[in-house]
Amino acid sequence: MQKRIKYWGWGYEDEPETPPQLISNMERYFGGFFGVSDFNTLPVPPISAARLRKPRISIPERLKAFCTSDHDERVRHAVGRSFLDYVNIFSNEYSNPPDVVAFVRSEQDIIEVLDWATGANAAVIPFGGGTSVTGGVEPIVGEEYDAVITIDTTRLNKVLEVDDVSQCARIQAGAFGPHLEAQLRPRGYSLRHYPQSFQHSTLGGWIATRSGGHFATQYTHIDDFVESLRVVTPTGTIETRRMPGDGAGPDPDRLFLGAEGSLGIITEAWMRIQKRATHRASIAVFFGDFLKGCEAVRVISQAGLFPSNLRIIDAEEARVNYVSNKNKHILFLGFESADHPVQAWMNRALEICADHGGEFDREILDQPNSHRESEQGRWRDIFLETSYYREITTPREIIYGTMETSITWDRFPELYRRVMDVTAQSMEEATGKRGSLSCRFVYTYPDGPAPYWSFYCLGNHGKLKEQWKHVKKAATDEFIAYGGSATHHTSIGRDHMTWLNRQTDRGFSRALRSVKSALDPKWIMNPGVIVPVDKSAA
Amino acid sequence: MQKRIKYWGWGYEDEPETPPQLISNMERYFGGFFGVSDFNTLPVPPISAARLRKPRISIPERLKAFCTSDHDERVRHAVGRSFLDYVNIFSNEYSNPPDVVAFVRSEQDIIEVLDWATGANAAVIPFGGGTSVTGGVEPIVGEEYDAVITIDTTRLNKVLEVDDVSQCARIQAGAFGPHLEAQLRPRGYSLRHYPQSFQHSTLGGWIATRSGGHFATQYTHIDDFVESLRVVTPTGTIETRRMPGDGAGPDPDRLFLGAEGSLGIITEAWMRIQKRATHRASIAVFFGDFLKGCEAVRVISQAGLFPSNLRIIDAEEARVNYVSNKNKHILFLGFESADHPVQAWMNRALEICADHGGEFDREILDQPNSHRESEQGRWRDIFLETSYYREITTPREIIYGTMETSITWDRFPELYRRVMDVTAQSMEEATGKRGSLSCRFVYTYPDGPAPYWSFYCLGNHGKLKEQWKHVKKAATDEFIAYGGSATHHTSIGRDHMTWLNRQTDRGFSRALRSVKSALDPKWIMNPGVIVPVDKSAA
Repeated sequence: MQKRIKYWGWGYEDEPETPPQLISNMERYFGGFFGVSDFNTLPVPPISAARLRKPRISIPERLKAFCTSDHDERVRHAVGRSFLDYVNIFSNEYSNPPDVVAFVRSEQDIIEVLDWATGANAAVIPFGGGTSVTGGVEPIVGEEYDAVITIDTTRLNKVLEVDDVSQCARIQAGAFGPHLEAQLRPRGYSLRHYPQSFQHSTLGGWIATRSGGHFATQYTHIDDFVESLRVVTPTGTIETRRMPGDGAGPDPDRLFLGAEGSLGIITEAWMRIQKRATHRASIAVFFGDFLKGCEAVRVISQAGLFPSNLRIIDAEEARVNYVSNKNKHILFLGFESADHPVQAWMNRALEICADHGGEFDREILDQPNSHRESEQGRWRDIFLETSYYREITTPREIIYGTMETSITWDRFPELYRRVMDVTAQSMEEATGKRGSLSCRFVYTYPDGPAPYWSFYCLGNHGKLKEQWKHVKKAATDEFIAYGGSATHHTSIGRDHMTWLNRQTDRGFSRALRSVKSALDPKWIMNPGVIVPVDKSAA
Repeated sequence: MQKRIKYWGWGYEDEPETPPQLISNMERYFGGFFGVSDFNTLPVPPISAARLRKPRISIPERLKAFCTSDHDERVRHAVGRSFLDYVNIFSNEYSNPPDVVAFVRSEQDIIEVLDWATGANAAVIPFGGGTSVTGGVEPIVGEEYDAVITIDTTRLNKVLEVDDVSQCARIQAGAFGPHLEAQLRPRGYSLRHYPQSFQHSTLGGWIATRSGGHFATQYTHIDDFVESLRVVTPTGTIETRRMPGDGAGPDPDRLFLGAEGSLGIITEAWMRIQKRATHRASIAVFFGDFLKGCEAVRVISQAGLFPSNLRIIDAEEARVNYVSNKNKHILFLGFESADHPVQAWMNRALEICADHGGEFDREILDQPNSHRESEQGRWRDIFLETSYYREITTPREIIYGTMETSITWDRFPELYRRVMDVTAQSMEEATGKRGSLSCRFVYTYPDGPAPYWSFYCLGNHGKLKEQWKHVKKAATDEFIAYGGSATHHTSIGRDHMTWLNRQTDRGFSRALRSVKSALDPKWIMNPGVIVPVDKSAA
């Protein structure tokens, strides 16, 4: 069995404490920022006191071996880890719990649940780690359905096969990041895909949501690692072929990558894996001007060097996260390889940084553990630790929101300034106080970056959802207006559907609805996500 | 106006002569191989004598400005450049000519033609350069349609916009390779996509068929260069967003990449372009054992070095093409960059070659024009010249066929041996004589190669089609049996549909048929290609 996440936040259920250093860091920073000496802090609510409606269907005898309506399991599967989810958790309000949770052990179990759901007019929610930050797993499905069955895939967690010659592995969709890597490590391999949710999210979730790994350029998207898939739909199981690359018609895998469970449930995939890196070089480069640093990133990304790390964070991001107080913007630059030394690559990238006014201490490259020390080391830790932030901020009335987009370089500077302005203003409108706002790049492509904003403002218990929505909407509207995407890698879920509908051509939506009707004729799969609900138009 | 291809083969219509050196090379080689001193050679048939049925519809007055039923245009648009097409050309048999050719000048023209076609129950064939080698443009549409209208896109041939910051260009779909590059060159850019048909094929054709460029690894597929698309379908025009990379639902571009005109007509695209390379290193490495050379290719492709060239050709391929008589297998290895010297990359790749018994003359790296000389230079020329081969071989009763697949490394050696055996045997069965057979790699991925076979056997006029089919079927059946793809980069067309149907999961075919019905409810777009014809099941 894989270890489970605690029901009210981040970390394993047998280590439920929030890291105390993170709590004191945040209280100190935001106490100073907002001028608050004592936050109005809610306690962690006990799971037994969670208010749930009664289950609306009863489990057929033949499915009782793996299906349950247990109170605690329904709570655990009622929400994800979005801002709205955390507000629900701390108010112990679960308005949309599933009626049943099915811990499927095989594809046959899934088929039986889908048959049952079809007959019972129940919506089906696929659930891996449940770490969606966009409302992907909360069963808000509307009145059209008589019940909700959540299918938990985490019993399907094995690496079934490793092909050492082609460097691929067949992996079940319910494997969590650490468990999956633990199975590959003895053979010297890694999937080398590290989304921020790595610890508690699953392969199937990554594929369904087109997750981005933490590497900054080239092969980092889960899309690029998928060689083939198996998907159970209400009308049958679909298996695609293992193919290194081909041009035989539209790529079937791409239909399920990003469908977020709206067409079926991914059960396993052949994934491209890699030898573990043995050569590394990394460094922090400091810039006085954020947009000048971004320009260095652009030139490096267009030079064909493909660094494994190429992330710029602004000075406020560095301050909030206790990475640096130098009031400089920091570019984390790194190269790694399982095959060859990477100095030639690093030298050229640093030349480009110097050309753009970047400052760095070259001697750090001679220190083998430099990536674990100073600003670099701190950022490395914080990358995973920020997943704890919402369990610290939300009960203290601090709204911690994020949003990110994908935009071409030509439009980035203007969008950047606009989003900074609009977000700052909307935080004041929503809460009456100035908020903290920072920007970093999460990915970089030759034709544009994926900028990511974090905002913190001091709201009021009872109004947090509306306050967050006001800020989120203001910024995301700008993404769409400037030609960007509603999301880059955190998925659509239910929180981003408004903007997905605005960014997507109606003709393509029509095509997608027809696919939905073909594979899922009763529209039971994760309703409200990805496919616009308009059955009549299909 | 762009220059046109000659109606009966390769090269521009104002330079119709086949390069004489190629003719004498082939007559010498195959004269010796087959023991023939005088080939039974058909003459080039005059276009005026082509037998065509009468046009079955008449052009409405309002469309006469750009639509025609001219005899010569109907001949030019009746076939592509597949083996079967060449047999038709040299027998002056055009069984399936379009009734009308529409030289569209705008999207509005396309919309009007699609409206007319819908009312007239006419099938519509999209036609760019017409260089399909798989029957993608010959209007074999069955008796269900009352007529055929071919839409020629080559008047839509402009680079409309260049975004220097993001390094992208908005390009019309009907631009031929050379014309497109000529428009980008003054600004220092290149699309850097060179399929073998480059001279006479168009951007729209490349996108519709998921074309592969001549670079051997990393960004070479047209898929990777597409940032956004416009597609005119019978139910409206679809435009996707310019996005460097995003995870917002299934990628809309991927639905049209590979649809081969079965869903609509691509009219323009934002394409990722690149600075022209200024640093180059290339070399030929010789191997005594083909599979050992392939193993070196595998290790290089898994090392993260990303050479621009990594193509191994076997000794017979070297002989047939007058590249080398050394009876060695040759790996062409090259690196290039617009940004930095590439020695470090080349040095490591050569270490790997040496580890696998590869032999090479390192001094060649110090010669700046080495890629234009000796084996390398000869291969560079032949890569484009082979497009002339069929106009030499077909009239001489030599069947020149090719087939390629995509296969994982673990299955490649066995598939390779099997295809070599089966193809040699089937050539003897079909023609009673031993044929020439060779293999090379066209692309290489970390998880597998795309091997490409060329075969030549001496057939008989009047039986060439059946003889070719016998060999082609034997080999392609093996691709499917071993888990490979029906094609890697030459597209599906009508020639490969049997095998596409066998490689595709039925559930995905069902999804695709539903998309077809949503976007093209009368099923008029390129019928018989990509989407299995089974309307009732949609």
